[in-house]
Amino acid sequence: MTVAQRYGEGHRIMVTGGAGFVGSHLVDALLARGATVVAVDNFITGAKDNVAHLADQPRFTLVEADVCEPLPRDLDALRDRFDAIMHFASPASPTDFGLLPVEILRVGSVATLNLLERAVADGARFLMASTSEAYGDPRVHPQPETYWGNVNPIGLRSVYDESKRFSEAATMAYHRYRDADVGIVRIFNTYGSRMRADDGRAIPTFIRQAMRGEPITVHGTGAQTRSICYVSDLVDGILALLDSYEVGPVNCGTEHELTMRELAETIVRLTGSTSQVVYTERGADDPEMRRPDLTRARTLLGYEPAVSVEDGLRRTIAYFASRV
Amino acid sequence: MTVAQRYGEGHRIMVTGGAGFVGSHLVDALLARGATVVAVDNFITGAKDNVAHLADQPRFTLVEADVCEPLPRDLDALRDRFDAIMHFASPASPTDFGLLPVEILRVGSVATLNLLERAVADGARFLMASTSEAYGDPRVHPQPETYWGNVNPIGLRSVYDESKRFSEAATMAYHRYRDADVGIVRIFNTYGSRMRADDGRAIPTFIRQAMRGEPITVHGTGAQTRSICYVSDLVDGILALLDSYEVGPVNCGTEHELTMRELAETIVRLTGSTSQVVYTERGADDPEMRRPDLTRARTLLGYEPAVSVEDGLRRTIAYFASRV
Repeated sequence: MTVAQRYGEGHRIMVTGGAGFVGSHLVDALLARGATVVAVDNFITGAKDNVAHLADQPRFTLVEADVCEPLPRDLDALRDRFDAIMHFASPASPTDFGLLPVEILRVGSVATLNLLERAVADGARFLMASTSEAYGDPRVHPQPETYWGNVNPIGLRSVYDESKRFSEAATMAYHRYRDADVGIVRIFNTYGSRMRADDGRAIPTFIRQAMRGEPITVHGTGAQTRSICYVSDLVDGILALLDSYEVGPVNCGTEHELTMRELAETIVRLTGSTSQVVYTERGADDPEMRRPDLTRARTLLGYEPAVSVEDGLRRTIAYFASRV
Repeated sequence: MTVAQRYGEGHRIMVTGGAGFVGSHLVDALLARGATVVAVDNFITGAKDNVAHLADQPRFTLVEADVCEPLPRDLDALRDRFDAIMHFASPASPTDFGLLPVEILRVGSVATLNLLERAVADGARFLMASTSEAYGDPRVHPQPETYWGNVNPIGLRSVYDESKRFSEAATMAYHRYRDADVGIVRIFNTYGSRMRADDGRAIPTFIRQAMRGEPITVHGTGAQTRSICYVSDLVDGILALLDSYEVGPVNCGTEHELTMRELAETIVRLTGSTSQVVYTERGADDPEMRRPDLTRARTLLGYEPAVSVEDGLRRTIAYFASRV
């Protein structure tokens, strides 16, 4: 990274969704820098397990709260000023879209607005976790940040896609009209330890199926592609955006695009499984392909993902194997 | 209209933004049907003047409240069950986008979610006022409801466009997962009495300039088109959607597309003004053209706009002339 570290020792940082998959890795990285970190989570998809190893860390506080409600000011951890607020709370897997639709809508609107107000009041840098879903089913490939996207506002995925687009619009409005110091990261498919085994996403599902010798269920023909990023690379990119003075949006992910069929076959090989790949019905509005244009991340942040797909998958398989 | 009237005498209907331009005309039409109407408005863009003629109407109550906050249950008018809730509150002119950005974001997210909860609790039909802005700067012309749109999520107009798209996503989620009875109308450019003279929209601006003999300020080359709908036609369409069992979204407007230059020249002619048309800088992301595909409105609702552009403009000019 070419961006000098700005946030670390002596800084107080709030991470919403701090017990979630990405959030908890962010928390680890911020603590490793010497920062004081307050994670706020209501555990509807986050897990206490993901931060259990931090129980004795004096610079870490875990607050169980719903960030859609006003933050409880009576808590010491939430009363004092924050230097940065990182909004990483949201159910994010397609399975969640049908199970937690109102929670997704609220955390991507009510919570974003509340946290932006707090960021302005504190003079904190506000980092918004947006998503490649903001591009919907893209007609431009790969996707640069200037692409406006192709999202069905009334589709099954819209609770998530439109909430994140709303959050981007809100973040930009607070930047333009309230002088908020903001950064928006559009996160592409990410994987690694602390994903939920049952969240319906391809990688944990395939790994679990492969480990059990069950059929690997690929949606549709398996020709649809994703670019998958190991979580440590993503965290590096997010922290570079935090340290920078960039507003974004900045894509973060990898350009290593592979089909769902290739992904399934690689996981079968790496697990030494006897599973067969089978093909099932595909969800509505499931994007055909997704690959970030990383020019902006490279140019502005010096971002460069370092973990190969094989290496990342091996580490992720080891994580799931350790939890059986 | 082919849809039989369902809502009228004996029904209690809430209209948010009921003192606004479209909202107040809706209130008039609902009262004319014999309904009991509660208008909720905080008057940030609505005006008490717009409903002043209803002061002695016993079936009408005007509540001054911000629909982003929980509705004050201690008020008799808001305590009892509603048969329908029509969410027409929002600043809606491009000038407002820069002046009231947070208010627009909140009324298109927090308020929509609150009102959907109330609609579910009351078993009320919920009508969401969406917009042709949901199509952004469209690449498909005219725009059918199946078109996903071309909206810049971080642009200057995004506070409005993304809030309305968010509201559509929320409305559909409550319909799918909470059994809410909902209808979504996408409103194209509408004009008529009770528009604000100073809201920055073309028709009131041109009329005011023409009446004063000032230059008519057309943005850009004036070749960009809009399809303009007189407010009484819009109200007929909205009430047909209310009466129907359709979810939508359903476009409402007219197919009479004209350029901004033609509009300016027509207004000069109808006012008998000596004003010259001049061309000024065009706003960012200002859509090139907009015209509704009305197939769905015609087929499902029997909708057919009846007021000609000349006739509608004459009535609107008469309204502004009466207020000088």
